[in-house]
Amino acid sequence: MLPTSRSPVLAVPFPVKQSMSRLVMKFGGTSVANLDLIRNVAAHVKREADAGHQVAVAVSAMAGKTNELVDWVQTMPQIAGQNAPFFDAREYDTVVASGEQVTAGLLAIALQSMGVEARSWLGWQIPVRTNGIHGSARIEEIDGSEIINRMGRGQVAVVAGFQGVGPDNRIATLGRGGSDTSAVGLAAAIKADRCDIYTDVDGVYTTDPRIEPKARRLSRISFEEMLEMASLGAKVLQVRSVELAKVHGVRIFVRSSFDDPQLIDSSPGSTPPGTLICDEDEIVEQQVVTGIAYAKDEAQISLRRVSDKPGVAAAVFGPLAEANVNVDMIVQNVSEDGSVTDMTFTVPDGDLEKAASVLEQARDEIGFEVLQSDPGMVKVSVIGVGMRSHAGVASTAFKSLSEHGVNIRAITTSEIKISILIDAAYAELAVRALHSVYGLDKE
Amino acid sequence: MLPTSRSPVLAVPFPVKQSMSRLVMKFGGTSVANLDLIRNVAAHVKREADAGHQVAVAVSAMAGKTNELVDWVQTMPQIAGQNAPFFDAREYDTVVASGEQVTAGLLAIALQSMGVEARSWLGWQIPVRTNGIHGSARIEEIDGSEIINRMGRGQVAVVAGFQGVGPDNRIATLGRGGSDTSAVGLAAAIKADRCDIYTDVDGVYTTDPRIEPKARRLSRISFEEMLEMASLGAKVLQVRSVELAKVHGVRIFVRSSFDDPQLIDSSPGSTPPGTLICDEDEIVEQQVVTGIAYAKDEAQISLRRVSDKPGVAAAVFGPLAEANVNVDMIVQNVSEDGSVTDMTFTVPDGDLEKAASVLEQARDEIGFEVLQSDPGMVKVSVIGVGMRSHAGVASTAFKSLSEHGVNIRAITTSEIKISILIDAAYAELAVRALHSVYGLDKE
Repeated sequence: MLPTSRSPVLAVPFPVKQSMSRLVMKFGGTSVANLDLIRNVAAHVKREADAGHQVAVAVSAMAGKTNELVDWVQTMPQIAGQNAPFFDAREYDTVVASGEQVTAGLLAIALQSMGVEARSWLGWQIPVRTNGIHGSARIEEIDGSEIINRMGRGQVAVVAGFQGVGPDNRIATLGRGGSDTSAVGLAAAIKADRCDIYTDVDGVYTTDPRIEPKARRLSRISFEEMLEMASLGAKVLQVRSVELAKVHGVRIFVRSSFDDPQLIDSSPGSTPPGTLICDEDEIVEQQVVTGIAYAKDEAQISLRRVSDKPGVAAAVFGPLAEANVNVDMIVQNVSEDGSVTDMTFTVPDGDLEKAASVLEQARDEIGFEVLQSDPGMVKVSVIGVGMRSHAGVASTAFKSLSEHGVNIRAITTSEIKISILIDAAYAELAVRALHSVYGLDKE
Repeated sequence: MLPTSRSPVLAVPFPVKQSMSRLVMKFGGTSVANLDLIRNVAAHVKREADAGHQVAVAVSAMAGKTNELVDWVQTMPQIAGQNAPFFDAREYDTVVASGEQVTAGLLAIALQSMGVEARSWLGWQIPVRTNGIHGSARIEEIDGSEIINRMGRGQVAVVAGFQGVGPDNRIATLGRGGSDTSAVGLAAAIKADRCDIYTDVDGVYTTDPRIEPKARRLSRISFEEMLEMASLGAKVLQVRSVELAKVHGVRIFVRSSFDDPQLIDSSPGSTPPGTLICDEDEIVEQQVVTGIAYAKDEAQISLRRVSDKPGVAAAVFGPLAEANVNVDMIVQNVSEDGSVTDMTFTVPDGDLEKAASVLEQARDEIGFEVLQSDPGMVKVSVIGVGMRSHAGVASTAFKSLSEHGVNIRAITTSEIKISILIDAAYAELAVRALHSVYGLDKE
């Protein structure tokens, strides 16, 4: 039986407390790209504050600013006569974190001029304590006490995203896109009722609307599903931030920063447009399939007639890991006679040459006969927590692709997703076919 | 007798210890305006480090960057619908201090790529503790211990100028041009043997070379004289930094950042081109007159027939101070019969209208008959610590100006300077005449 799609009209309103709630609002670089847009962000914040919410805001650098700063850092040593870019990640962090610092100060000023009490907070001031991995630090602890204190007195906290302070008392950045993680971490630290991620799309869709115009915005999606969507190419949210939200139970609401701030109802119980990422318990009518994701620019490598002995997988993937090649799908069949097998896996297109060269060097150790490689593959994935309790989801996908003449190269599955590797030429066709076969294009 | 000029060829070399010395090097915005120039600065620093000096560097923001950030801060509330610019000075500091942060990180990277061990330091990391007057904070304490510690191990400290941290644990900036003050404060904190201020001129001159091409670079000038030169319009150094240097006995060396770093001899005992600002005890052949300074855009206000009663000066200057008008030269003659007097003073041209309006409002209280005002005045000053012990310096000036047909409007004197107010049309003539009459144009 074909699983039915989730109907967004059935979505219940947020279980927001009728009393005052505590909100984190996060705005990315395109939402704060210039002074006018920062003013627009201030209007969004004012709306929530006026509605009686306690508000903390996390901001990114103005769009383009981080790229400029990163470019300076990377170019500097080259100018100084070096061939390969070399830079101290601690200095990188010092330079690049200045972008969020500027946005935070400007937004605080914009809010103040609109009559909203506000102050900016830098990572070291809160403090947001991180580990010492400069350039891609992880948050270890956020002291939310003073921010909670001031929110209680009506002050909006404007927090510079993307940054914390390391054990060495120096600025540590969380890696590109780290502002989402900042916002979720902050929400956990101040025990926020919700973390609103304002972005240039108005939510999470059943699939990419550029490929399938019938894609619909999901009113809710579970953390687990969003993790699969995010890591499979839906660029709405950083994977890390969703992981963090799952661990701390932070409900994320993805919404558009380009909606008119004046036209949005922020009163308790209202349901603004967007997608709530939450625990699956909160999703009343859980559907079997939630969305179709895809990832482009994959390359397939097959090692033929590999000797099927213990340790062969380590012999293949050890050298690849050392060479920093990110291996994704891995398929190994049971060999017929227990002596040789075929091993297939995917790597990013851009790493294919490197991967092939690494494997050729390790040929004797691995003991394969032929290395076949095919660039230009696409991985299409069917995602839904409902798969756990429903049979037949996979066979529905295979049947549909077969009917559309799409050749399946490899398949991997997890508890809540089925990933299928196909030729890039069939990507759009496959996405549309799967979107339709699970009824995702229907109201 | 006409005092003779100081001869720069008689200048003795720096009394630099033959052993390793500790240096602060300061580079302003035009010296770090782009990546190439930052690399040039790194070469200057490397030269000193290679010569065996322990080095700390203080840097400004890249030229134009501070103006851009200030403009954003000032424009933000206007965009938000305010008429007059309004902004929280704490947020101003947060935004604007990011400029020096970027330069410090980039210079540290440039140094590292040239094989010089270096790290950047932000105000809050050292820390540079300031008072709470955000936007124009004063340094209260700098903890130089960790920097001294690391310099001893061969690490160059690259310090973001212009910034410290206030009692509220927020970034506090020292006001425009505050990087000079940062450098001198740092030099005092780490007990540096010298603070080298690299700038776009190669030293302090006997007068402005754009007016008098025969102006000569001074090899040495005392703190007191430099204070007068700086406050009278020689734009080489911030007045505050010279005051701080005088208090802490920090020897400042003003030199050019555009000299080729490779061609400068930094070995102990060498005398690179520049001007040393030091205690007068260090100036072996102290001359009577050191330089001729001038300040443009002065306006003269004369109150005629002011009733000569106690408290009249307070009645005049109190309201002007309240209106934020900076009064400079003040001349009051003893009245003939003890009943009425004339009072003359100068204000900046741009404040003339405001000053006149304030005074008219206070006319009854002050009790003057006529208010005369003349814009377009220039103040020319003769400066030299030798005046203390030499008579006739003033009369030489008056005689020379008289011979050149320059009408003197007002005169004020201090222990080491004579200031003369004249019509702007005679400014260049007067500067040249005075420069010549004291022999400053002669080797």
